[in-house]
Amino acid sequence: MYDMVSSLKEGGTFLLNCKWTDAEMEKELPVSMKRALAKKHIKMYAIDALATAQKAGSPKSQNMVLQAAFFKIANIIPYDEAEGYMKKAVEKTYGKKGPEVVKANCDAIDMAISELREVEIPEWWATTKVGAKAEIPADAKADKYYSEFISVCNAQEGNKLPVSKVSDDGSVPTGTTKYEKRGTAPVVPVWDITKCIQCNQCSYVCPHAAIRPVLATEDELKNAPKNFKTKNANGFAGMQFRMQISPMDCTGCSSCANVCPAPGKALKMADFEETAKVEKPNWDFAQTVPVKSVPATNPKNSQFSQPLFEFSGACAGCGETPYVKLVTQLFGDRMIIANATGCSSIYGGSAPVCPYTKNAKGEGPAWANSLFEDNAQFGYGMFLAYKARRDKLACDMQKAIDLGANETLKAAFEEWGANMKNVDITRKCADTIKAALPEAIKAASGELKSVLETIYQDSDCIVKKSFWIIGGDGWAYDIGYGGLDHVLAQDEDVNVLVLDTEVYSNTGGQASKSSPTGSVAKFAAAGKRTKKKDLGMMAMSYGYVYVAQCAMGASQPQLLKALTEAEKYDGPSLVICYSTCINHGIRMDLGQTEQKKAVEAGYWQLYRYNPDAGFTLDSKEPTASYQDFLLGETRYKSLKASKPEVAAKLFEKAENDAKVRLETYKIKAEESKANN
Amino acid sequence: MYDMVSSLKEGGTFLLNCKWTDAEMEKELPVSMKRALAKKHIKMYAIDALATAQKAGSPKSQNMVLQAAFFKIANIIPYDEAEGYMKKAVEKTYGKKGPEVVKANCDAIDMAISELREVEIPEWWATTKVGAKAEIPADAKADKYYSEFISVCNAQEGNKLPVSKVSDDGSVPTGTTKYEKRGTAPVVPVWDITKCIQCNQCSYVCPHAAIRPVLATEDELKNAPKNFKTKNANGFAGMQFRMQISPMDCTGCSSCANVCPAPGKALKMADFEETAKVEKPNWDFAQTVPVKSVPATNPKNSQFSQPLFEFSGACAGCGETPYVKLVTQLFGDRMIIANATGCSSIYGGSAPVCPYTKNAKGEGPAWANSLFEDNAQFGYGMFLAYKARRDKLACDMQKAIDLGANETLKAAFEEWGANMKNVDITRKCADTIKAALPEAIKAASGELKSVLETIYQDSDCIVKKSFWIIGGDGWAYDIGYGGLDHVLAQDEDVNVLVLDTEVYSNTGGQASKSSPTGSVAKFAAAGKRTKKKDLGMMAMSYGYVYVAQCAMGASQPQLLKALTEAEKYDGPSLVICYSTCINHGIRMDLGQTEQKKAVEAGYWQLYRYNPDAGFTLDSKEPTASYQDFLLGETRYKSLKASKPEVAAKLFEKAENDAKVRLETYKIKAEESKANN
Repeated sequence: MYDMVSSLKEGGTFLLNCKWTDAEMEKELPVSMKRALAKKHIKMYAIDALATAQKAGSPKSQNMVLQAAFFKIANIIPYDEAEGYMKKAVEKTYGKKGPEVVKANCDAIDMAISELREVEIPEWWATTKVGAKAEIPADAKADKYYSEFISVCNAQEGNKLPVSKVSDDGSVPTGTTKYEKRGTAPVVPVWDITKCIQCNQCSYVCPHAAIRPVLATEDELKNAPKNFKTKNANGFAGMQFRMQISPMDCTGCSSCANVCPAPGKALKMADFEETAKVEKPNWDFAQTVPVKSVPATNPKNSQFSQPLFEFSGACAGCGETPYVKLVTQLFGDRMIIANATGCSSIYGGSAPVCPYTKNAKGEGPAWANSLFEDNAQFGYGMFLAYKARRDKLACDMQKAIDLGANETLKAAFEEWGANMKNVDITRKCADTIKAALPEAIKAASGELKSVLETIYQDSDCIVKKSFWIIGGDGWAYDIGYGGLDHVLAQDEDVNVLVLDTEVYSNTGGQASKSSPTGSVAKFAAAGKRTKKKDLGMMAMSYGYVYVAQCAMGASQPQLLKALTEAEKYDGPSLVICYSTCINHGIRMDLGQTEQKKAVEAGYWQLYRYNPDAGFTLDSKEPTASYQDFLLGETRYKSLKASKPEVAAKLFEKAENDAKVRLETYKIKAEESKANN
Repeated sequence: MYDMVSSLKEGGTFLLNCKWTDAEMEKELPVSMKRALAKKHIKMYAIDALATAQKAGSPKSQNMVLQAAFFKIANIIPYDEAEGYMKKAVEKTYGKKGPEVVKANCDAIDMAISELREVEIPEWWATTKVGAKAEIPADAKADKYYSEFISVCNAQEGNKLPVSKVSDDGSVPTGTTKYEKRGTAPVVPVWDITKCIQCNQCSYVCPHAAIRPVLATEDELKNAPKNFKTKNANGFAGMQFRMQISPMDCTGCSSCANVCPAPGKALKMADFEETAKVEKPNWDFAQTVPVKSVPATNPKNSQFSQPLFEFSGACAGCGETPYVKLVTQLFGDRMIIANATGCSSIYGGSAPVCPYTKNAKGEGPAWANSLFEDNAQFGYGMFLAYKARRDKLACDMQKAIDLGANETLKAAFEEWGANMKNVDITRKCADTIKAALPEAIKAASGELKSVLETIYQDSDCIVKKSFWIIGGDGWAYDIGYGGLDHVLAQDEDVNVLVLDTEVYSNTGGQASKSSPTGSVAKFAAAGKRTKKKDLGMMAMSYGYVYVAQCAMGASQPQLLKALTEAEKYDGPSLVICYSTCINHGIRMDLGQTEQKKAVEAGYWQLYRYNPDAGFTLDSKEPTASYQDFLLGETRYKSLKASKPEVAAKLFEKAENDAKVRLETYKIKAEESKANN
């Protein structure tokens, strides 16, 4: 896909990071590349950086491996000298993470040199006609925006695009990450049909929507590939069930396999290449099976709805994206999103592609991002604009009734006017009105005709929309808090989703007011002195704001309940979701387990405050050690290593802060009980 | 003071608003004015607008009187026509305030015409040498900044000033409002020595620091004017007591007379001219009597300290300035203020004068104003800069000790280092160090000399400063809230004073998040739908922020206690003060009484939350009708007049909101009791 050789000089040196043997390169390298390598008489080297790093016991050190290989062959300075510098840098960078980490990185450097090999380039490559071709999915090929814009940008040739190819108003199509098929995962899950208990938890937690349950009738399976195994669907008579992964979209985080509760695990991580051969056709076929949405009354059922957020560029194992994905499964087809700057704006809208997508009817989230400091206001503005448009629509419908609209339309207009905030009724009215309008417009004349035309133009306003203001804790607790507070105070029907990583994730881990006492972050290198701000409590002080705190890994049903209630509540809602993050210094494949631990240790509380129903503390009394939990994360552990006395003091304070917080919630829950 | 005649044309028309008879003008008009009037053959008219408006039963309608007089003599349109327009405008502007207000304003118009009179200008005025001279106080005359800058600006000749007269860095001297002696009050208080019980409440509530108790020894009274009557000071043996007003600085709001609790009232409002004759010399003499500060253990004693905020341009009867004044009496000599945009930045720093002032030692508040949206951060930055300077000073003192500073300095440096946050000790150390340094510097050489010189330069940092971040509710609840929250969260020793008028006062009465349900304001013309934000509760959620709510008119001791505790607390403090305002539509002379009513009706609560001591609800169970309180203020009453049904609903909600709020405070108080 990328041109990696045109800037090479005659007789230059080229290092390729790949897992291929010399023989395999024959078919894995593209024609143009092979020709250029041979014509320019390139000195070529290869190394499998991942395998080398794994061998050294430091799978994340691929960059270290490649750096060592680079210095070995580049001959900029004598390699011995370079090695000395690199190892000194390792000591400096990782010293505080402990001697094991230092050793593993140094081993990776040594192993790089022993694994590095020269590749013979056959002379006849200069005129070869045989080689690999980039695989472009059929749907991508058919999409003009893909071929004219995305593919050009993705090949890093975007600056060759003429201005005429760039959108006039800045809007871009959604649903384009599916074309990328990045295939970045070294390992992907393999489904064991015999062990699967059909709980859909793997799908619920997948950060990239790369594993999805399929419900299909026997009839729909007629043309399935032979490996497309299914079993009787529990609870859906006459349906077949299958859990389908997309190997090309999976990032290999292993979160699905981690959460699988089936005895003996129904998902195991396996080599990408092998699995992809089997599962690519299966995935393609699964995409042709019509989605069977069922009411999301529990986490399992929520997963039969199509995720309208998929294949984003978020980190493997991202703790935020499963929340965003779930929201789109619940409300995505009528969702409007204002997104704060931060990780969620990066993976939510990185040009040239967009992970938000559309269902078969062409319905899906509309998404936009503004500044760090004004996202709540930005979303509130969208809400107000839409509210004004709907109010005008109501006037127009009344006008049409007065001017003698036909009986079908009259009934639908009246029903809509009386139920503007009811999702199901407005959906029904939208179908009726959209179906009846074209004929009615034809039949009408004069003012009625023009009013009906206006209604037709505004028919996107008929279905009640779901407004979401999304951002991280840097936005919600800090930079955007003034606006967030102001918008919540307005008592209007907007929903706020806070992806709380307790740190500025996207900018590299600066402390926010969400960062708890004792955590190490930028601007809090010696451990944060002040405690975590209680954003939820502050919002609850209004009395008319729905507030919930969730942690998917601790309770999938509680999260589902909170999101459903928040969206339903006819007023402002704030849902604060604990999101594990690479900045925490944890194993990202175990992110969901870490969330569970956070709640069990009393580090994070689950609750829902519904102004209509009171406060419910959903998490139980802590059962695990608070201190053990802290020491399981590098953001805390590292303080203990560098400043043991400070750490002891701050961790004790942190535990006490959490206890006080829990007490406050208990009192609130008791008050609520007393009042109900 | 003002040149009012140089732009008059030959034979032009001139209207003077004054209370003088034609004969009195002889001595009341300045020479230059009399000459110009005569030379240009001016047709001159006079009217006493205040007396006319009072006669019409609408003392505030002076502008209406003058407008009518203007149209009568200006002959722009036939007066009958002008009268019609004016009366129509009255109907439109005041209609919703009721028929009495309309009638009074129309009467003012009619009465203007009957009271308007022509003034004969004697021909010999053209060469007269007799006339009034502007009275410039002696201290003003002696101040170069007054004569070169203030007096020029105040004469509205500021644009004639050369750039060289403008401060290079934007800083201006404080203590300059005392030169203005505006004499704007039509009535001023007269003190009845026989009735006075020496409670000092009049002084406590005075918005302009224009009435002050004097404590003097017999000896100090030797040269007193004969009318400078005193009596034995209660509780201060050997001292004489007197309550002294400054007629030229008083604005005539009558708040002092209103709060006077003495049987039969020891203060009564009387004609300005008569009183000024007697009291001007008395005031001047009182200023020469040394201030006798005593510990501010109660409201009475707090008033013997010099107000370091005086004679501002705030409205007569302003509800905010008594709070600001009190803070300066308590901490002013070591106070640094960051002031948010709003009324307090206008009356706090209107060029060319500044109401913040200095004591006899030259110590007083340093004051600055930044933008609406960043005042908390602005003040926090000042705090951080000062903290860094003090930390450096501590290092320098240690260095000086190490280099062999003399015993006196060594002892003082050590004592200071161990007590940097102790006001009294740092004051004592400052005296010792400042006294000993010059000699020690002379005696020292080499590095020690240079370190001691540095300490001398930084000696303004020795006394512990008192940091205050001041602003209104528009700043604290709305525009500056994001920053305020952030600064409070930092757990540093800054104090925040919120002057809560429940509305954007300075910009003309827009609703803020502090505006309660049902109040009428701009952006909430149909009554505010959402309830008042509980700023204090939100700040309390941190657990380490001192928070208090006060209303001076309801409890002077509670306010004093709150301010003292807030300042003493070694962490962030937030004091929210209920401030009556012209925007409330109340009688401003009764502002203090209105505050009392607000608390008695359960409209406003008094409390103090000290992280070190828990939550105390200082106000009692409401004893008066909430609804009656609302109907006593135009901001509510006007909604009842224009939309009675909406008003009924919103007022009920408002009362309920207040009850819920009170319940929350009670629960907090009980919790605190249980924990202590």
